[in-house]
Amino acid sequence: MELDKDRLWQRLEKLSEYTDPGRPWTRRAFTDRYARAREWLREEMESAGLRTRMDAGGNLIGSLPGSDPAAGTLVSGSHIDTVPDGGRYDGILGVLSALEAVQSFAEGDTAPRHTMEVVDFLSEEPSDYGVSCVGSRAMSGNLPASLLEYTNPEGERLGEAIRRCGGEPDKLNGALRSPEEIRGFLELHIEQGRVLESAGTRIGVVTNIVGIKRYEIVVTGRADHSGTTPMNLRQDALVGASRIVERINHEAHAQQRSNAYLVGTVGKIGVRPGAANAVPGEARITVEVRSDRQELLDGFLAPIIDWAEEAVCRRGELRLEVRLLSASEPTDCAGDITRTVAEASRALDLSAVTMPSGAGHDAAHMARICPMGMLFVPCLDGRSHCPEESITREDAVNGARVLTRALLDLDRTPPAGADPVV
Amino acid sequence: MELDKDRLWQRLEKLSEYTDPGRPWTRRAFTDRYARAREWLREEMESAGLRTRMDAGGNLIGSLPGSDPAAGTLVSGSHIDTVPDGGRYDGILGVLSALEAVQSFAEGDTAPRHTMEVVDFLSEEPSDYGVSCVGSRAMSGNLPASLLEYTNPEGERLGEAIRRCGGEPDKLNGALRSPEEIRGFLELHIEQGRVLESAGTRIGVVTNIVGIKRYEIVVTGRADHSGTTPMNLRQDALVGASRIVERINHEAHAQQRSNAYLVGTVGKIGVRPGAANAVPGEARITVEVRSDRQELLDGFLAPIIDWAEEAVCRRGELRLEVRLLSASEPTDCAGDITRTVAEASRALDLSAVTMPSGAGHDAAHMARICPMGMLFVPCLDGRSHCPEESITREDAVNGARVLTRALLDLDRTPPAGADPVV
Repeated sequence: MELDKDRLWQRLEKLSEYTDPGRPWTRRAFTDRYARAREWLREEMESAGLRTRMDAGGNLIGSLPGSDPAAGTLVSGSHIDTVPDGGRYDGILGVLSALEAVQSFAEGDTAPRHTMEVVDFLSEEPSDYGVSCVGSRAMSGNLPASLLEYTNPEGERLGEAIRRCGGEPDKLNGALRSPEEIRGFLELHIEQGRVLESAGTRIGVVTNIVGIKRYEIVVTGRADHSGTTPMNLRQDALVGASRIVERINHEAHAQQRSNAYLVGTVGKIGVRPGAANAVPGEARITVEVRSDRQELLDGFLAPIIDWAEEAVCRRGELRLEVRLLSASEPTDCAGDITRTVAEASRALDLSAVTMPSGAGHDAAHMARICPMGMLFVPCLDGRSHCPEESITREDAVNGARVLTRALLDLDRTPPAGADPVV
Repeated sequence: MELDKDRLWQRLEKLSEYTDPGRPWTRRAFTDRYARAREWLREEMESAGLRTRMDAGGNLIGSLPGSDPAAGTLVSGSHIDTVPDGGRYDGILGVLSALEAVQSFAEGDTAPRHTMEVVDFLSEEPSDYGVSCVGSRAMSGNLPASLLEYTNPEGERLGEAIRRCGGEPDKLNGALRSPEEIRGFLELHIEQGRVLESAGTRIGVVTNIVGIKRYEIVVTGRADHSGTTPMNLRQDALVGASRIVERINHEAHAQQRSNAYLVGTVGKIGVRPGAANAVPGEARITVEVRSDRQELLDGFLAPIIDWAEEAVCRRGELRLEVRLLSASEPTDCAGDITRTVAEASRALDLSAVTMPSGAGHDAAHMARICPMGMLFVPCLDGRSHCPEESITREDAVNGARVLTRALLDLDRTPPAGADPVV
């Protein structure tokens, strides 16, 4: 079973050229350009021998019927929309690799037992409606009616926008697919980081998709004139916040050294009054914690706050307020899919490392209704969501080969926990 | 020689009531309200027996001729303009105390040897024209023609605004007064800090007015996706900047513990990209250093930058850029005036402490043309430039009594370095 490497690369080039002119690589969901790109994709699917349809969530699906109607469906795919300015390969690599894999099955001598589906999920990136992963939420029953009422700046409801894309928002009152029907979901994606590149590793075998907690911490001291307030009479909120920033960084490093996956980031900071000659009376920071383990996610900030109350606030006469802004839980990949991806990499003589996905993906939603797995390939210098995002032809092909091999292996083995076929 | 305490306090109440209605205590320089307040002040000066005039810099001056025309002039005063929202006592205490002192001389039995002048300096606070201390700059020859070309948001030139106030901008090509003519300048002001209040001290004897250096430091790292960039691959500019903020604070505390006057403040901070899920690639801070000693001012930041290049940048793969934004030099008060103020406090049985002025004042400009001194009285909780700014009647009277006594003592003693009168 050999892939057509040129066909895969040409499709990546072709699809990425559906971009807003002068602003590569921009193909925003719900636009006319996006619709034209999906029309091209539908034609490619059909010319590859797949039957195409649009589901109620606006997901474009191409399917190849399996030889055993009772075996269920193996699904692979990703998305073709982008954030503004880019991601030339983010998303489309997963869709077009899945298409190449299933086309190779269609062209092969033996039909797979499972029905094979290629999915282009609607609007994975944060959209103008304030919702991301629209299509995978819809398929997995995680797009409640309240979200359909969200509007874009022009006032169009998300439900209407889904209808424009060929979906049926009235039917989105539960998962569109059942756990009994889908054997598994596997998504190939660019890493969007530098772990693979810096280690010289070709394949990232994803073990889980991280959970995220975001907090706001407000440090309150006292605004004073810088010239007339000696150091010992100050309650400088920024000095307190700076120590907390450092502590968060220090503790996250310590977690990483103990081989846990956890990152802690302060990405935003502001002070008031915010003048060169004013001692800051208030400092406000946003703290984001990501981990693949719920107990690390839940347990990270509290000891830092306890420390800060003692070491920062009492000594500096400051007050802290901590507010949880948002929380999502870590999602495990299915063990048998993860193992299958690792074995496929080994069989193809490609170096591989297990790793969590620090970013969210459609796969995290699919895990609600079926066993889920992901694999990563390196991207240049870890850059993503920007015009510079780049991958090599070789890494694209490597990823597609591992994906294809893993789908075939899953097709041939029963799901974990099922009786062995004898 | 006794002051009329009620008259002093009533004048403070009366003058502060010249405020924008609904926004106490706002009396911005160059406005009609300011002009009406100065007209009231001129009448008060004349009813006190002083001759009034406006100098070319727009300064309102009331004078009481001395008994010895060769003795020269002793000047005291401050300003009656405010920043938006306040300062009820900032400035006007110095003007009205000087008026009370000179009125008491006029009402006394013996005329002072020196001509006594009360000055209301034009526009001490930062004005809409981008220049502060307009009147004291003009009097001391520090208002070059280039500054007269500055305009307010309506496009009016500062020179025109001075003319509206009764000044003659064409004559501002040098100091308006000569060192030979002025024996000394003494200004009473509220402290605008908490040093006196926290020590329970009644009088601050100012030794010098601090110099100020302001810098911008830009820390450059690398912006990355927080989820896909493990801690060990980050170049987090905010973590680096936080360590520098702490170090500046730590070193300024150390200077204070060694009894030097120095304050170091980071009053502004910003990061880019500035998103919850982005590792900061750039952090920008403003550093302000104030000291009464030029060598401390000049020597403060360099060792911190040296330390940061090694301890922060090398370890965190960050780059630093440091830019000097502005610099002003420390100004010493005249030793004989400082001693006279300290002795006057002692004679009146008022506790006193020597201290630098951390804020700028008209007195700093007057030091260019004559011996200069200042004294402070406590203000409530150190608050200033805000509606809450407050002083007690007792402290206002204390300050006026020391000012009066010191002016009398200076009138009776020759300047330092002159031959003693035998």
